[in-house]
Amino acid sequence: MREVNIAVIGATGAVGMEFLRILEERQFPADHIRLTASQRSVGKRIPVRGQELVVQATGPESLEGVDIAFISATSRVSLEMGAAAVEAGALAIDDSSAFRMRPDVPLVVPEVNGEDVEWHQGIIAIPNCATTPLVMAAQPLHRHNPVSRIVASTYQSVSGAGGAAMTELREQTRGAFQGGAPPPQAQPHQIAFNVIPRIDDFGPDGYTKEETKVREETRKIMHSPGLAVAATCVRVPVYVSHSAAVHMEFQHPMDADEARGILAEAPGITVVDAPEEGLYPMPVDVGGTDDVYVGRIRKDTSHPNGLVMWVVADNLRKGAALNAIQIAEEVLKRDCLKPGGKAAVAAASQSLND
Amino acid sequence: MREVNIAVIGATGAVGMEFLRILEERQFPADHIRLTASQRSVGKRIPVRGQELVVQATGPESLEGVDIAFISATSRVSLEMGAAAVEAGALAIDDSSAFRMRPDVPLVVPEVNGEDVEWHQGIIAIPNCATTPLVMAAQPLHRHNPVSRIVASTYQSVSGAGGAAMTELREQTRGAFQGGAPPPQAQPHQIAFNVIPRIDDFGPDGYTKEETKVREETRKIMHSPGLAVAATCVRVPVYVSHSAAVHMEFQHPMDADEARGILAEAPGITVVDAPEEGLYPMPVDVGGTDDVYVGRIRKDTSHPNGLVMWVVADNLRKGAALNAIQIAEEVLKRDCLKPGGKAAVAAASQSLND
Repeated sequence: MREVNIAVIGATGAVGMEFLRILEERQFPADHIRLTASQRSVGKRIPVRGQELVVQATGPESLEGVDIAFISATSRVSLEMGAAAVEAGALAIDDSSAFRMRPDVPLVVPEVNGEDVEWHQGIIAIPNCATTPLVMAAQPLHRHNPVSRIVASTYQSVSGAGGAAMTELREQTRGAFQGGAPPPQAQPHQIAFNVIPRIDDFGPDGYTKEETKVREETRKIMHSPGLAVAATCVRVPVYVSHSAAVHMEFQHPMDADEARGILAEAPGITVVDAPEEGLYPMPVDVGGTDDVYVGRIRKDTSHPNGLVMWVVADNLRKGAALNAIQIAEEVLKRDCLKPGGKAAVAAASQSLND
Repeated sequence: MREVNIAVIGATGAVGMEFLRILEERQFPADHIRLTASQRSVGKRIPVRGQELVVQATGPESLEGVDIAFISATSRVSLEMGAAAVEAGALAIDDSSAFRMRPDVPLVVPEVNGEDVEWHQGIIAIPNCATTPLVMAAQPLHRHNPVSRIVASTYQSVSGAGGAAMTELREQTRGAFQGGAPPPQAQPHQIAFNVIPRIDDFGPDGYTKEETKVREETRKIMHSPGLAVAATCVRVPVYVSHSAAVHMEFQHPMDADEARGILAEAPGITVVDAPEEGLYPMPVDVGGTDDVYVGRIRKDTSHPNGLVMWVVADNLRKGAALNAIQIAEEVLKRDCLKPGGKAAVAAASQSLND
């Protein structure tokens, strides 16, 4: 595998820091690594692969000589740096929602639709951290027995809202014992000892943007524009790892044991499903690991062709940083660092309209 | 309304204490009140209506001269005291799962099936605290447009597992800051900063008893033995109030505004549904109140006849103690303190087999 120069845009954020850890763990073939962040983090020193790297200010010059830019900052930074990357001939792998639904931008979970990296035009998007575990669990079953409907209720950790939300949960919780909790700022309401049925803003249809992302991104990644999807996205007082109670309906009846077997063999999935022994996935166990964990797989008593399951993944890793690095690995493996031609775009549009 | 003599069996538990508060708030027409509990609470003094009552040991003698016995203790105590109440000619209103599915025992949420108190044979059961909010939200809509399927994912507070679980959440959370958290005892795993996809034991079908209760109790209360119901019951680190993300499918398409209007007029329900103003029900707001709160009512994007909503209620109040007192009020209102005849039982069996 060739070595590449990379830039990590937003290196000091919760996802950025995780990204650097995973880069080391996986010995990603990076030749030169540049770290950038917003003005207030400039000059910070971050140890990476035994070296101290100095954080620079994010700007178009961040992309000089760069092959791959990982972007995890604000949507505004993504829009600017994504365009700058295309201009500079670098590949942007972007963690924001800015590009995800654009027909010329592949939205990729390598285990699900790795082939889609081939038609990139300079930008590849990472799905929302609530979408990724869902498609990871659905696609292997879908290949076997088409999924016609997905209903998900999520239990999402505060790290999905960034480092400030993690600090806020800690300080609010401490305040419950010692007094003096600061008012909510990173979250719209108190999150300590509470659950908030709202992540991101509301659309006119009563769904939050987060819930709409889960629906639209699932359809795009699974190449199933007609798939019926509905989500309720809820914030819970957990630091890391998103969980979801998921109902799937299939074209034909689906046996729970069969589903368990299919998922156990699917790459990137660990089945933890021996409930009578107290074994099912939970955020405290899953945080810091790479796989999507599936448990509590059972027949849906309310639908003849349905299954219910419980899906948990580390939202900072598989939900964001790990998936980004896996996309880069997929690009290198398929040798498609440089954008494809118009044929690729046409193929992409077609696959989206299947 | 006539005044009655009551016994509160399990008076020192989380539900028992709530029960005594609500008794005062509602000025329930109790002439004499007797408090009983297990041996270790005997002699405790509890202020009720300006008097200090001394807790006695639970036993058959607890029912002497008693018209209504409220039981919220263990299932074993319920079985013993329920039988003793029938023997003594008292009406037992029971909070356990011991009698709920017995065809000769009405299972009642007064706003939903208050008429069922009339065929009691000495015992009336209170539903599980996860079931009550669900049927409260479903029944008014069901009367208007038959509900064919309910899918619920719950976010249940630790008080549903009793006072010890509340203390455990507090001590575990404190331990996260100060060290020395005790190992899980009231819950099967760490609950602080975690969610646990398991409440009660597992059955052979992969559902927990809690999830099976939600299904079977919903069918019984709504007189709909064929209703399709599936639940995933999850414990979250919240002290009081259970929440649920609920999908309902109807016989005909159902407009969200119409549902909002129907629920706004239903007794015991408060609609809090102005999400763009940050208004939706949350445990921290609902705790300590009587109603079932419904918000986030919207079309189910995954089903033409479906609605999605978010339902929150205080599990100690409407989920248990308040519902028990409302049942007693319903019994007094309908003047059916003494058991009905065989005709009533026959009618009951018939209604269950509809």
